[in-house]
Amino acid sequence: MPWRLASTDEDFEDRFATLLGAKREQAADVDAAVRAIIDSVRAEGDAALLALTRRFDQLELTPATMRVTEAEIEAAYEATSPDTLEALNLAHRRIAAHHRRQLPADDRYTDAIGVELGSRWTAVESVGLYVPGGSASYPSSVLMNAVPAKVAGVERIAMVVPAMRGALNPLVLAAAKIAGVSEIYRIGGAQAVAALAYGTQTIAPVAKIVGPGNAFVAAAKRQVFGHVGIDMIAGPSEVLVIADGDNDPDWIAADLLAQAEHDTAAQSILITDDLAFADRVETAVERQLSTLSRAETAAASWRDHGAIIVVEALSDAAPLSDRIAPEHLELAVADPEALFATLRNAGAVFLGRHTPEVIGDYVGGSNHVLPTARSARFSSGLSVLDFVKRTSVLKLSAGQLRELGPAAIELARVEGLDAHGRSVAIRLNL
Amino acid sequence: MPWRLASTDEDFEDRFATLLGAKREQAADVDAAVRAIIDSVRAEGDAALLALTRRFDQLELTPATMRVTEAEIEAAYEATSPDTLEALNLAHRRIAAHHRRQLPADDRYTDAIGVELGSRWTAVESVGLYVPGGSASYPSSVLMNAVPAKVAGVERIAMVVPAMRGALNPLVLAAAKIAGVSEIYRIGGAQAVAALAYGTQTIAPVAKIVGPGNAFVAAAKRQVFGHVGIDMIAGPSEVLVIADGDNDPDWIAADLLAQAEHDTAAQSILITDDLAFADRVETAVERQLSTLSRAETAAASWRDHGAIIVVEALSDAAPLSDRIAPEHLELAVADPEALFATLRNAGAVFLGRHTPEVIGDYVGGSNHVLPTARSARFSSGLSVLDFVKRTSVLKLSAGQLRELGPAAIELARVEGLDAHGRSVAIRLNL
Repeated sequence: MPWRLASTDEDFEDRFATLLGAKREQAADVDAAVRAIIDSVRAEGDAALLALTRRFDQLELTPATMRVTEAEIEAAYEATSPDTLEALNLAHRRIAAHHRRQLPADDRYTDAIGVELGSRWTAVESVGLYVPGGSASYPSSVLMNAVPAKVAGVERIAMVVPAMRGALNPLVLAAAKIAGVSEIYRIGGAQAVAALAYGTQTIAPVAKIVGPGNAFVAAAKRQVFGHVGIDMIAGPSEVLVIADGDNDPDWIAADLLAQAEHDTAAQSILITDDLAFADRVETAVERQLSTLSRAETAAASWRDHGAIIVVEALSDAAPLSDRIAPEHLELAVADPEALFATLRNAGAVFLGRHTPEVIGDYVGGSNHVLPTARSARFSSGLSVLDFVKRTSVLKLSAGQLRELGPAAIELARVEGLDAHGRSVAIRLNL
Repeated sequence: MPWRLASTDEDFEDRFATLLGAKREQAADVDAAVRAIIDSVRAEGDAALLALTRRFDQLELTPATMRVTEAEIEAAYEATSPDTLEALNLAHRRIAAHHRRQLPADDRYTDAIGVELGSRWTAVESVGLYVPGGSASYPSSVLMNAVPAKVAGVERIAMVVPAMRGALNPLVLAAAKIAGVSEIYRIGGAQAVAALAYGTQTIAPVAKIVGPGNAFVAAAKRQVFGHVGIDMIAGPSEVLVIADGDNDPDWIAADLLAQAEHDTAAQSILITDDLAFADRVETAVERQLSTLSRAETAAASWRDHGAIIVVEALSDAAPLSDRIAPEHLELAVADPEALFATLRNAGAVFLGRHTPEVIGDYVGGSNHVLPTARSARFSSGLSVLDFVKRTSVLKLSAGQLRELGPAAIELARVEGLDAHGRSVAIRLNL
């Protein structure tokens, strides 16, 4: 049974706060183990990487066989069915087109007193892309992480993907080829993150590492952060659906289950102003659950973390939604634009009854790497901006330095920084 | 004696790599102490905060006296000299004007098949601003951190500043008033970071925390990251000056010392193509050093981390500069724009002989919170973008869902996600 709340309940605020604060994930404490793995890869390079791959992935590699060959990638691509290739190519085209609009423009300008200022954007030179192995080895994630980097102008994208006993998902290789990934290595875990961050004899280091992974990968990314850049640390997936009573309950139930099937820690929440509709959705979820191949996962997620919240009016949903700050937000209402205008915190919003969140997972064009665990209050989904950096520019003439210099000297004086003051004063013969 | 390297030396690559890799800062391991502080503030709120302030800052406060009053702020402002106020106001105007250009534009558009897509930007609702106490309590840093937040539209800026035995720098209060800070609390350390992240009876929690601090503050920011957003973890300051032999060696020496006086771990590097000029700068540094009030700090920084690198041609400086990825980069050469065009990794660049880096610290208009420790390879200085977040938007009609849906269903199928496929198929009667 999912949580049931009604905004008219006396204990609503308490229970809503409990729902918000509930920890869905137990973070395994793997920090010490990960530190040892990183240290060993830093110290011994390839030798450590190969030994750790033998131990964790039961795979015997050599420096020469770590890298997936062009022939393997080509074979995986050729083995992919035409329907799948067409879908991957459509997704690629739409993701690339959307992300090209995110490229920031340089801004050089001259202000009122003639000082030149500006911001110049350049691409990060090299990026490491982590792709999980096994059942979470998704070709769509390869596209979502690699395409913004390519659009940004990143020259080198080095992908790593663990190959347990040698097994690789050929669709992941096909997606990497479509996205233009430069290099692929069949390694994973904290040892792969360490190799990307510090380099080995075979793998050149990168400047930034992105992509999802298990607790070891997440801890490794946290530990190498600072030496290299990282993207967010993603938590379990979430959807909030705000729906009026005019929806087909089966459609909404399907949307709730699409999140729930990801992970037992995933969360699906419905907010509606129609109690009878809420009941119909709950019934539809139960009915659909039994037919899913991942029924056990979806059922556990829905039972432990699912929630149905009944409000008096849809306008009451907005402040609750902003407190949840959902990763995905569906507005299945008659006037979704009006409701959207009153909302603030969400990773991605899906407007209207014909925009299921799943479209955004694959072919909408927007990115499916989005802030989880209420972090949409302060962060954004993956974009081209994650693969560029800005250099600010300042250029003064002697005359402009004479105009602005005295204020700088005064502030250096009150901050007790003599040499700061002198660096300006010496140019003004002061 | 600073490091001396020449690109023609046989061991140049080795020594340059050693210079790049040298650790300038010993990170104190305060993680466990900080964890205990955060836990105690989370559990006991104000009571813990007041006890920790008594212990660490030797200051007896009550919930009522934690907050700096309007009258105190007003008195600090009134006590500030007109010259200083004028300088702060000039800095504020110029920083605000520059940062207003960084406000990102929303982007809603319709693609070729009629699908509506977009990015909508909104401000982070509330921000905590950490300001160090003591000699590093800089009014300029208050402006540099608060102004981008105000320009972004952040409604609430809660500033914390430790007051050892009650002492507050009145200029920090004056700068906070000029910048429009909403609330100021006389607390600091990891306990202040915990109060901002989790809230207490007196202090409402914020969504993001920015600002520099000591090892305790940095560790606390790392630990609360995820629950709230944080800015970068700043390391010791750095400057790289690329200068030809036509510069006044005293000007360049002053610029090198302006970084060195910050911190014994600060780093000043000169790259020049003129050996005789290099010697003249080294002599000028020694001469100027003796006259600085912070001579001891500057001398230690220059001795341990300072470097002079002589190259054969200025064009050889560019690849070295990109490997250093300096926080601040001065191009004191005849054609700075041409050299800049060949460079990629730098937090802020200062073009020409009349743009000392110090102008950027105070009144240039660009931000002085910049990526240190080679992180300009993958990150940028503080900007309005740090105080906004993006929601991506997707809106399909029934017809467009019919067009894109089959590709999404195909990708869901190959990824083994039944409910994903159903969420689309059910709307298409498939």
